[in-house]
Amino acid sequence: MSAFFTSRWIEPLAQIDELAGGLPAGFRAAGVAAGIKESGAPDVGLMVCDAPEATSAARFTVSGTAAPPVQLCRQRCRLDAIRAVVVNAGNANAATGRMGLENAARMQGAGALVARVPEDRVAVASTGIIGVPLPMSRVNQGIARAAHELSSGGDGAFAQAIRTTDAIDKHATLEVRLASGTVRVCAQAKGAGMISPRLATMLCFVQTDARMSAATCDLLLSVCLKRSFERISVDGQLSTNDTVVLQASGASGVAVEPETEEELRLGEAIDALLRQLALRVVADGEGARRTGRVVVSGGDEELTQRVARAVADSPLVKTALYGGDPNWGRIVQAAGAAVPGSAPLELDVAIEGVPVCARGAHVPHDAAALAQAVSGPEVDYAIALPGDGAESEIYFSDLGHEYVSLNADYTT
Amino acid sequence: MSAFFTSRWIEPLAQIDELAGGLPAGFRAAGVAAGIKESGAPDVGLMVCDAPEATSAARFTVSGTAAPPVQLCRQRCRLDAIRAVVVNAGNANAATGRMGLENAARMQGAGALVARVPEDRVAVASTGIIGVPLPMSRVNQGIARAAHELSSGGDGAFAQAIRTTDAIDKHATLEVRLASGTVRVCAQAKGAGMISPRLATMLCFVQTDARMSAATCDLLLSVCLKRSFERISVDGQLSTNDTVVLQASGASGVAVEPETEEELRLGEAIDALLRQLALRVVADGEGARRTGRVVVSGGDEELTQRVARAVADSPLVKTALYGGDPNWGRIVQAAGAAVPGSAPLELDVAIEGVPVCARGAHVPHDAAALAQAVSGPEVDYAIALPGDGAESEIYFSDLGHEYVSLNADYTT
Repeated sequence: MSAFFTSRWIEPLAQIDELAGGLPAGFRAAGVAAGIKESGAPDVGLMVCDAPEATSAARFTVSGTAAPPVQLCRQRCRLDAIRAVVVNAGNANAATGRMGLENAARMQGAGALVARVPEDRVAVASTGIIGVPLPMSRVNQGIARAAHELSSGGDGAFAQAIRTTDAIDKHATLEVRLASGTVRVCAQAKGAGMISPRLATMLCFVQTDARMSAATCDLLLSVCLKRSFERISVDGQLSTNDTVVLQASGASGVAVEPETEEELRLGEAIDALLRQLALRVVADGEGARRTGRVVVSGGDEELTQRVARAVADSPLVKTALYGGDPNWGRIVQAAGAAVPGSAPLELDVAIEGVPVCARGAHVPHDAAALAQAVSGPEVDYAIALPGDGAESEIYFSDLGHEYVSLNADYTT
Repeated sequence: MSAFFTSRWIEPLAQIDELAGGLPAGFRAAGVAAGIKESGAPDVGLMVCDAPEATSAARFTVSGTAAPPVQLCRQRCRLDAIRAVVVNAGNANAATGRMGLENAARMQGAGALVARVPEDRVAVASTGIIGVPLPMSRVNQGIARAAHELSSGGDGAFAQAIRTTDAIDKHATLEVRLASGTVRVCAQAKGAGMISPRLATMLCFVQTDARMSAATCDLLLSVCLKRSFERISVDGQLSTNDTVVLQASGASGVAVEPETEEELRLGEAIDALLRQLALRVVADGEGARRTGRVVVSGGDEELTQRVARAVADSPLVKTALYGGDPNWGRIVQAAGAAVPGSAPLELDVAIEGVPVCARGAHVPHDAAALAQAVSGPEVDYAIALPGDGAESEIYFSDLGHEYVSLNADYTT
C-alpha cells in the first residue's frame, strides 16, 4: 500500500520505490519563515542545484495578466539551464506593474548571490495575495537565511514554504530503477486549485539526478504536464502565477538519452508523480469531498477536449458531484452547451460504468444503485460523442459550501 | 416609484406606463395545474392570439443538446406567424430522444386543436427535469382545461404556470405611448438563471397589440435580446430549453413601420421590459444576495465580450460579490485568463467608480470605503482594456451557499 499513490486512476509502476524524503544528488533546499505570511508560517523557499552542467525546462501560465515573476522568468532566464529557484508565498507579486518587475529582479539577484550562480540561471516564483507590493526587505532576509539552511534533506521545508491554503501535503521522493542504474526524482507542489482566497496559484518544482539534455527535460515536462496539471480543473480559473520547473543535476551519473528505454521509464515515473500531485491539488479544492474524472471519446480531439472542459467546469455538475447526486441531465446539458448548433447531438453517457443516456436519450437504470455508486471519493463519468479516434480526460473537484465559505466569507 | 422597474441600471422612459396586468388586445391566456409538478402547482400554460394576421419572431438555445420542443419549433413551426404557445413546467422533455419529439408534436397538435389554428402556427416549450418522458395524458388534460380558462386577464396565471424554482415574479404589462396611438406590451418570463436543480431553462413570452411585420418583430426581438437575456450570466450554463417568443396581434390598429419614431419608441419599451426581466432572472439566482454589472471597454468587440464573460462567469469573482468583498485581484486574474498570451495586459479596473488598478498595477485606495460601497444589492465593475470603440456589458449573479444547497443537497 502506497502512502503517496492513493488514486485508483494511477497505474502502479514496477520501477518505482517511494522514499520518505530527501532530494536527488546535486540538490540542496531550504524553507524559512520570513514574515510575509501574516500567520508566521514558512514563506520563502530556496532550491539550489550544485551541478554546473544542470539542465532544465519550465512552463508558465499563459494568462494575459501573468505576474512579474513569470514575466521575468520568460524574459531574463536561461530556462534550459536553471540552477536555482527562489519562491515566496503569501504575496503573488501580481498586478504590481513596474515595481513588481523590479522586485522580481531583486529576488533573482539575491538568489544568484547566495547560490553563486549567474542571475539568468535563477528562476523566481511568487504565490499569495494579488496587487500588494512585495515586502522586499523580508524577502531578502528570508533568502539570506534560507541560504544558510540549505541541505539535501530540505525538500520538506521547501515544500512547506511554498504552500498557501493547501490542506494536503504535496511532495514526494521516488527512486526509479532504470536499466543503467537508479535515479531519484523529487517534486514539491502547491495549490488548492486556483481557488484560494486571493491566492490563485499552482506551483510545482521537480528535481532529478538523472543526466539528460535540456531538450529531454523539455520533452518529458511537456508530455507529463499534458497528462497531469493540464488536465485538472478546480474552478476553471487560470492563475496569474502558475509555474512548473524541472531540473536535472546529472549527479547520479545515469544518462537518459532520447528515445531509449531509460527515457520511457523515467517519463512514466515523472508522469505518475505529477498525476498524483495534480490529483492532490484537485482533492485539496478547499473542502472538496469528491474528485471527478470525465473521459470524453469521439472523432475530433478539439471537440472531446472542449466537452470534457465544459463538464469539468460546470458548476451544475460540480454541485451534483458534491451532493453525491448522479444527475446525468447536467452532463448532457454541459456537453450540449459546448457544441452549439449541433442539435440533436447523439451522445452516450455512463456514470461509474452505468449507461444512463444513449444517443441523446435516457436509458432506464437503477437510480438508487447509481446514487450509491457516486457516493465514494472518486467518481467516473464517460461520454461518447459520435465518431472515434480521439479521447480527452479531465480531473475535477466538486463545488461545495467550503468553497463558498473560503472564497466569500473571507472579507477584506 | 415603479413597482417593476427597480434597477438603477434601467433608464426611466417617458412613454411608458405600468399597468397592474392584462394582456394586449387580441390575446387570451390561461395557466392550470395538470399534475406534472409534484407540488401540484400550476404547470401548463396556454397563450392564444385571436388575430389571424398575427406576426411573430422567436429565438432558441443554441445548445447541441437542445430539447425536442426546441427542435420541433425550429423544424415544424411558422416562426414568423405564431398564433399559439403551449408551455409545460415540471418536465423539460430534454434528452428524451425520438419519443420526446413525438410528445412535443402531440403538444403542438393539442394546442392547434384548442386554439383552432394550423399546427405549424403553434410553438411549444417545456421546462423542468431533464431525461424523464413527458406524462402526456396529464399534459393533454392540462391543455384542454387551459383552453376553457383562456381570458384577456390570464397573463398572471400563464406566468405562474411556466415557473419552476423561481422565487421572484417575472411578468409585467406596459402601456406605451407612440405618436400614432397607444399600444400594450406584456411579457412573462421564468428562470432563476439556468441553475435550478435539474431545471435548467429560461423562457420568455412577449405579446403586443401593435401592428407590425414579422421582419420588424424579428428586428426588435434581436436587438432587445442582445441587450437583455444575452447579457446575463448566473452560472454560465447554456440551457437545453431556452425559448423566447414575441407575438404581435395588430389588434390596437397602431402600425409600427420600419425606421420610424414608433419603432424606436416601442423598441425602447421592449428593451427596458426585457432588461428588467433579465435582471430579475439574475437577482433570482437561487438565494443570490447581489447582482453585479461588468462593463468592459477596449478596441475590439470580440475581446471586450470575452473578458466581460470571463469576469461574469468566474466563481472567484462571484463568491467575492456574494461576500461583499471588493477583491479586485480576482477581476485582474479573470480578465487575464480570457486573453492568454497577451501579458503584460495594461488594464484599468474600477469598482463602484473607485479606480483600483491602472495599467495593470494596483492603485492606492480606501479599502474600507470600497468594502462599504460593494455591500449594496447592485455592484458595478468597469474594466478598460487598451484601445477604444468597443464596449460589452454583462449582468451576473453572485455565488453563495444557497446555490450550493439548492444544487447539491438536493439528491435523487
